[in-house]
Amino acid sequence: MNPNVSLSAFRLQRAVSVCSLHSLELLVASLPENVEYLSGFFPVSVSALYSAEAYLVFKPSTGEKALITSAADAPTLTELGFEGTLFPVGSFCFRYEDGDPVSDFVREQLKTRYASVSDALASAITALGFSRGRIAMDESRMPIGTWNQVRKAFPNADFIEGAPVFRQIKYIKHPDEVALIKKSTNITETSFQRLLPLIRRGISEEEMCQAFYEGVMAQGAVPYFCTATVDRRSAFVDTYNHPLSTVKEGSVIRFDFGCIYKGFRSDIARTVVAGENEKAARYYSGILEGEEAAISALHPGVTAGEIFDTAVAAVRKTIPHYDRHHCGHGIGLACYDLPSICPGSDVPIEKDMVLCIETPYYELGWGGVQVEDTVLVTGESAEYLTESSRELIYVEV
Amino acid sequence: MNPNVSLSAFRLQRAVSVCSLHSLELLVASLPENVEYLSGFFPVSVSALYSAEAYLVFKPSTGEKALITSAADAPTLTELGFEGTLFPVGSFCFRYEDGDPVSDFVREQLKTRYASVSDALASAITALGFSRGRIAMDESRMPIGTWNQVRKAFPNADFIEGAPVFRQIKYIKHPDEVALIKKSTNITETSFQRLLPLIRRGISEEEMCQAFYEGVMAQGAVPYFCTATVDRRSAFVDTYNHPLSTVKEGSVIRFDFGCIYKGFRSDIARTVVAGENEKAARYYSGILEGEEAAISALHPGVTAGEIFDTAVAAVRKTIPHYDRHHCGHGIGLACYDLPSICPGSDVPIEKDMVLCIETPYYELGWGGVQVEDTVLVTGESAEYLTESSRELIYVEV
Repeated sequence: MNPNVSLSAFRLQRAVSVCSLHSLELLVASLPENVEYLSGFFPVSVSALYSAEAYLVFKPSTGEKALITSAADAPTLTELGFEGTLFPVGSFCFRYEDGDPVSDFVREQLKTRYASVSDALASAITALGFSRGRIAMDESRMPIGTWNQVRKAFPNADFIEGAPVFRQIKYIKHPDEVALIKKSTNITETSFQRLLPLIRRGISEEEMCQAFYEGVMAQGAVPYFCTATVDRRSAFVDTYNHPLSTVKEGSVIRFDFGCIYKGFRSDIARTVVAGENEKAARYYSGILEGEEAAISALHPGVTAGEIFDTAVAAVRKTIPHYDRHHCGHGIGLACYDLPSICPGSDVPIEKDMVLCIETPYYELGWGGVQVEDTVLVTGESAEYLTESSRELIYVEV
Repeated sequence: MNPNVSLSAFRLQRAVSVCSLHSLELLVASLPENVEYLSGFFPVSVSALYSAEAYLVFKPSTGEKALITSAADAPTLTELGFEGTLFPVGSFCFRYEDGDPVSDFVREQLKTRYASVSDALASAITALGFSRGRIAMDESRMPIGTWNQVRKAFPNADFIEGAPVFRQIKYIKHPDEVALIKKSTNITETSFQRLLPLIRRGISEEEMCQAFYEGVMAQGAVPYFCTATVDRRSAFVDTYNHPLSTVKEGSVIRFDFGCIYKGFRSDIARTVVAGENEKAARYYSGILEGEEAAISALHPGVTAGEIFDTAVAAVRKTIPHYDRHHCGHGIGLACYDLPSICPGSDVPIEKDMVLCIETPYYELGWGGVQVEDTVLVTGESAEYLTESSRELIYVEV
């Protein structure tokens, strides 16, 4: 990739090239992050309301774009330099002022309004010259009613699911995206560093989560998820944090957490021992060896399945019964980007992928240990985006 | 409603009664909030990952439940007293300890696993004795692939969209739910009170949003949304908060914001003037009169359309050109619950609805003013859940 290509130009190039692989005439985004990826416009209402919808239609052969969203979003578009056609939905009311440029723009944009999102989407697709051929619609945030109505309007077209197309577009990152993932990751790490001195005998899972989230907010990011589980509950995977499960002398505490910074997710894991815990120390050394072996093995051309095998084999030197269904995943605007580092995968690792590599271990009745780091695949190897120590962390309580 | 009915019993009664209205044999939840409504189990992974799915199938005639979720969630279920059948998906790996009750439970639960969510969902539906008849599937978080595969497995059944069914179930609130909405609302108000002294000349929209979110976190809630827009941008509806749009002498600042407390959304609005702004004061007095007239008119039996008309007519005494597409909505586990307070609606207001009543005004080229409060409909009228002053707020900058 040419590092001098702007982020928006890079994203359109990615979209054009993946659409070509799938012989797509049109690509429709529904997930707010996917709408923003192609247009620069993030539909705030869709992100907040499950019942709201917004779509971006992209025509790879010409680069044309159509945005289907609430009429209420028209003023925001004046600031974003959106180059495309707006298909506004609904009867949102503005008062206009003569001679005001935003008023003029919005009044012009809202001359034709659509009563329903599906009418607007079908009209946009027609306006882009589509009637037959292949179209991918991102099903992530498209309810069945919209899907069926649009499909019915184009009886000669071939509809495919678009979410996998977007995952393929997004798995190679631009340097600006890498920088934002790194920032998101480092905010998570810093919040954790601020939390560590607060860990004391009696602190609950819920309180540790709360402290982590406050640290995230204080750095201008948004809380995303936090698993801060103690002892037996540390084997409970992505569970809620219990207000009555607390740290004791000898506790093992498994943290798996992340934040959202300018849309980019982070997802790392660390393990803390309060005082001493021989079994946790032994098992942690095994999973860390597995994680680091996998990261050391990363280079363009190796397959995801080989990385998985490397991780599991290294952990088994210490934990012979270790078993796992994946040892990592891409990360970016979604927490689970491609590829999945899973058994048997022949997906090749590529330069400019950003990956979370992890080797968690969950033993019911005892507890869990986990380490997870985020790396950028470079020309020959992988470079850590995480900056903190990966060792087991000991605190006195 | 009998106030002595427990929350979980109340929710099942609501579901049974609405299923009966629609002659439903089965109801399927997909939105994490809807899964939790019927089961007590909130699928954390589905909430965090757009590509994840979990479903709860409910059979109103017997009260039977089936939960379709990742095998990784099995340990968490031991704590929730979930009464139903688990249909676990995927190959998630646990290490078990003999004699440990959680290990025994999870091992037993995971004896039969499903390779895909749609296989598990179809199996669950069959296990509940369904083959023909009417089934509503909540489309909110069900991708088209799952919908089509399940539908194909039951060619003689009548499938309808379930999201409207859940909205109908949830629009009458239990006292415990009212208490949580009130708490969520009051956290938003308290965060705003903490933010007010920080408003000074030069503070940006982004900084005000950040301060609001920090206040929310400090009270144990999660940031949900915040529109903190200044002057011309205060007419931009649900837009992002601009880092370079700042408060000046005479500025009007429109706040529309909320948080999430134990799943319950809050959504209120207040307007601030920095120093003096005669037009903002005049227009605000108009919208406040409209909001308060609407709230005063609330009682069981009046229609949503009548409340809308009352609000708009009262605002027009001061702003003759005032126009609006809705003046409020229900609120609860979703920000936009039923009913919508919109023109022409003949939906009757009922006791135990919780409503957000709002009369925003957006004038492009100038700005916007807004007031929004949350009320509980009682036997004869409505009771404010908001506790703060509704007057226009003046700050010195």
